[in-house]
Order: sequence, then C-alpha cells, then structure tokens
Amino acid sequence: MEQRGELVSFRPDIKVVDCTIRDGGLVNNFEFEDDFVKNLYTANVASGVDYMEFGYKASKEIFDVKEFGKWKFCDEDDIRAVVGDNNTDMKIAVMADVGRTDYKKDILPKKDSVIDMIRIATYVNTIPAAIEMINYCADMGYETTINIMAISAAAEDELDIALNLLSKSKVNVIYLVDSYGSLFPEQIRRYADKYLKIGEKTGKLVGIHAHNNQQLAFANTIEACAIGVSYLDATMGGMGRGAGNCYMELLLGFLRNPKYNINPVLRFLQNRIVPLKKSGVVWGCDVQYMLTGQRNQHPRAAIEFTNQKREDYIDFYHSLFG
Amino acid sequence: MEQRGELVSFRPDIKVVDCTIRDGGLVNNFEFEDDFVKNLYTANVASGVDYMEFGYKASKEIFDVKEFGKWKFCDEDDIRAVVGDNNTDMKIAVMADVGRTDYKKDILPKKDSVIDMIRIATYVNTIPAAIEMINYCADMGYETTINIMAISAAAEDELDIALNLLSKSKVNVIYLVDSYGSLFPEQIRRYADKYLKIGEKTGKLVGIHAHNNQQLAFANTIEACAIGVSYLDATMGGMGRGAGNCYMELLLGFLRNPKYNINPVLRFLQNRIVPLKKSGVVWGCDVQYMLTGQRNQHPRAAIEFTNQKREDYIDFYHSLFG
Repeated sequence: MEQRGELVSFRPDIKVVDCTIRDGGLVNNFEFEDDFVKNLYTANVASGVDYMEFGYKASKEIFDVKEFGKWKFCDEDDIRAVVGDNNTDMKIAVMADVGRTDYKKDILPKKDSVIDMIRIATYVNTIPAAIEMINYCADMGYETTINIMAISAAAEDELDIALNLLSKSKVNVIYLVDSYGSLFPEQIRRYADKYLKIGEKTGKLVGIHAHNNQQLAFANTIEACAIGVSYLDATMGGMGRGAGNCYMELLLGFLRNPKYNINPVLRFLQNRIVPLKKSGVVWGCDVQYMLTGQRNQHPRAAIEFTNQKREDYIDFYHSLFG
Repeated sequence: MEQRGELVSFRPDIKVVDCTIRDGGLVNNFEFEDDFVKNLYTANVASGVDYMEFGYKASKEIFDVKEFGKWKFCDEDDIRAVVGDNNTDMKIAVMADVGRTDYKKDILPKKDSVIDMIRIATYVNTIPAAIEMINYCADMGYETTINIMAISAAAEDELDIALNLLSKSKVNVIYLVDSYGSLFPEQIRRYADKYLKIGEKTGKLVGIHAHNNQQLAFANTIEACAIGVSYLDATMGGMGRGAGNCYMELLLGFLRNPKYNINPVLRFLQNRIVPLKKSGVVWGCDVQYMLTGQRNQHPRAAIEFTNQKREDYIDFYHSLFG
C-alpha cells in the first residue's frame, strides 16, 4: 500500500467531520444544553472543521420524542436555531439509520433544508435498503455517505458484495467503521486499501469512523488517512459511545493544512467538555471497553458495567466468553 | 518495510518488559507499598511477562535516600526481599542513567546479584559514557540494553553515529525510546527500520519504549513489533511519567503467544491500580500532555500543569511557544 502525502505537507482532499453531538448523544441521550451545541458550532467553524454532524434523523413513530433530547430527531427548525442559514464554509450533516428513519417523510428536499449531507448507517445485511435510502437522498439533492457498521463481525465475502453494490449507487463517500474498536492498524490498512480500490474505480471517496476501545481510534484514523482515506471523523475530547472516538484535538494537531486551527477546540474543551465530564457524563477507554474490543464484541456489556460503577474486571472478562 | 509474523500467529523472539515500578516510580517518587511490588511480581510471573524492571540504580551521592522510595536505588537486598532467588522464568531488570549511577560501586558482579539485565539510559550526547557502562556491565556478566532517550529532539546524523558506535559495543538490545510521546506510527516505523538494519548487521536486538501523550503508545509499540522490534515495554494501566506508557493489558490482549495470560494482569488492575488511582496518584493522557507531545517537548510543563490542577488549556498551549 502506497502512502499518499507526506507528514509535513497536506492533502487538500481531507475533510474533518465532527460527530460530537451524534456519537456523543449516545452517551447522554442527546440531552445537550442549547448553548453547548451553539458553542460547538462556533468552535467547529472557527477551527476549520469541514462537516458538523448534528445527530440522528430518527423516526418519531419508532422513538418517543419525550424520551430523548432533540438531536435524536434533528428537526429542521432545531438545526436552524443554531446555524441560521449556515453562511459558513462548514457543511451540516445528520445520520439516518436504515430501518429507523421515516426518510420519505422527514427528509426535506435539499432546497428547503440547511442540511448538506445525509450519512446513512447500515449493517451489511441491510445494504439493499441502504442503497434505496442513498439514492432517494441523492435525488433530493444531498451529499450522502454510507457507514457500514460492525464490519469486524461481518463475513468478508458479504462485505465485498456490499461494497460492490454500493459502488454502483449514488453514494459519495463509503465509510470504514470500526464499531467495536477491535481493529488493529494493520487490519485498518487492509480494509482501507480494499475500500479505496473499489472507490477509485467508481469515483467514491472513503471515510473512517474509529472507536477507542483499544486506544487505537486516533492511530487507526491517521493510518487510514496516510494511504488515502479522506473523510476523517472525530469528536471533542473523544466524546462518543462507550470508549468514545478519535479525539478532535489529536487529529487537528496531526493535520498540517493551515486551514485547521486547534485554538477554538482547546477553548471548547476548557469551557464545555471539562464541565460536562465533571457533571458525571462518562465516556472514554477503560479496561471493560478494551476487553469487549479485544473480544470483537458490541460494547453494550461494557457500557452496562460502567453504568453500574463495577470494577471487577476478572468477572466481567469471563462473562464475555459466556 | 516488510512485516514479520502474522496477526494470528506469534514470534517467539518477542519479550515483554514490565516497567511499572521504574517508569511509574517517576509518578509517585518510587513510594510503592511493599505489597504492591510483591503483587506485581507475582502477577508478572503468572502472566508470562519476560522481564520486570524494578527501578533505578541511582547514585546515593547525587540523590538523598531519604527523599525517595527505595526503588530509586534498587539495593540488592530490597529486590531479594520481593523475589528471593527469583526461581522463575521471568528475568529481573534495573535501569541506570548515564552520569547518575555509581555503577562501579553499586553494580555487583552478576554471580552475586539476582538482577539479570541492566538497562542503560542515555541521551545522544553521552553515548561514549553509555558505552563505557554497557561494556562494564556486560563484562560483569549482565545482559544490557541501551535506551537512547529523546530521539525526536536529536539531530538525525548524530543519532546515526550513536547507533553505529553502539552496534560495536557489547550491548544486547538497542531501544527506540519516544520520550516525549511525539512520534507518529509512520515515524516509528522509519526509526524502527533504521535500528533494525543496524542491529541485524551486528547481532543486536531492538526494543521500543513508548509514551502515551498522543494516545499512540500501544499503536506505536505494535507497529514497531510488526516490522521486527522484539523487546516491548509496557506498564500496568499505563502507569508512567506524565501521559504514561503502553498499557500492559492492551499489549497482552494483542500478542498471540499462549505463554501470555491476561488474567493476572486484570486481577492486578482491579486490586492495585484502581485503588492507587483512587488514592490520588495521577497519570495518563490528557490535553496538556497531548500538547507537549505535539510540540515535541519534554512533558515537565504538562506535569506541573497537572500538579496544579489547572484546566486553562489555551494559556498552557501558548506558553509552549514562549
């Protein structure tokens, strides 16, 4: 695999995607203070972040709006209350889960929306439904990404077929997603190479969304970047489900493009992330997440262990083999 | 650079070195409870760790024994109080800093000591003194390593000369040390390749000692390992100066050699590391360490920032440019 770009130069094709509200919302039930989201928007714009993901476009038929913060649903008016008409260089993204979005009802024509990109999250077994959503959203005028989750637990031949089908869809970016935080850099490079080869043939770009169970989210992100992956997901202070994600402050410290500025990120960490952590919102790598990552399992057991404030790692470890 | 070994197999040349007391001692002034060290020794033996580093052989002329815990000095009797005659497969190591060890007085002939390996720590500019120590210790019957610190801040031509001189010494293992936690995986691979090429010509093995300022200690360790580095340093819970080191629990979760067993490590974390952290001993990656890592600086300013419980990252960041 060939390296693209040198450490001291920069590749203009790289896009940084902030997922703090969307993946972080999985930690606090999307209950962010309005000021938090406004401060984050301002910080992202000032730091040169390319896309900010606001949350999910979840179905109000499936999920009760009273049980979640508003970023689970990302109503147009709620986004506009933060960004106005978003007269900035930063684009707005939302995520839509296959099977849990009323996309024909809830996704407006692009001309009526301040959203620029719909990120469609799927498992390998729901690719046909995902492609239907991709093409629908593309026809409505949106940029689209496909985020294929839990690939470390999928059969590789099925993944190959999925990638082949996606390469013929209208999707712009195919995301390599390490949902369980179980992949090592050498595996990430191999997957990234596979995605890039398929993407290059059909004009698709490739992105990466990493989890930090084994403290590899940043390493895996920059290793994928080094061989050509261009959409890089990160969150402030690594906020995200379970062990969290690639830290924005690490990523911007690595990238050499002078458009990126770490100062607004540091200010946001100081003013918003430190108090959020002090208020008792918990994320970040810890032994239980490392163990589910090593076992290539969904982090839900580790999240439960964390919520119960347990520290009996041995018992937890053996429960993962049950 | 060619990969050595596959992810699902294992290389028998790999040695895991526990540095919890030595590098962790820099966090708590080497004031470990006796039981902590005994529990650690037992855990390391049971988990298949190859070497346990007890601490420094520091000069009692330079350092006042009343101001430090005993593992700053590693008297033979103190080690024997923990290990007896060490009738195990695990070897015992200590570190000796060039210029801060009375090695001709304090290092006994191997036949009178339970220590197996002397690890000599040096900067590039004290290589001749380091070589004198290496050859002295080798002649006394010890295995030796040379740990060249702060290479990210050294001139590369001087490093090349240093490696060339060391390759002609009696040293067994040349260590790649990322003292500031500033090196990215692609740089680690390049350095490792350089060290390995020099080492191969003259029968020296190569080791890696990583710091976690940018959450890359584990990633850098396994990436170096993948291309042939065989001595891998780690600590329990990552305990070590500032941002700490490569986590033992991550490393043993990665290695496939069935001699390694993660259970005793988890038990040690549960019984000793969790309470140690709760008692107020602080280490681990945080914004201030990330910033000194990104700036390729010694972590001392970040350690001071941590000790003062400061959270004004912006002011700290700008102070690093002063």
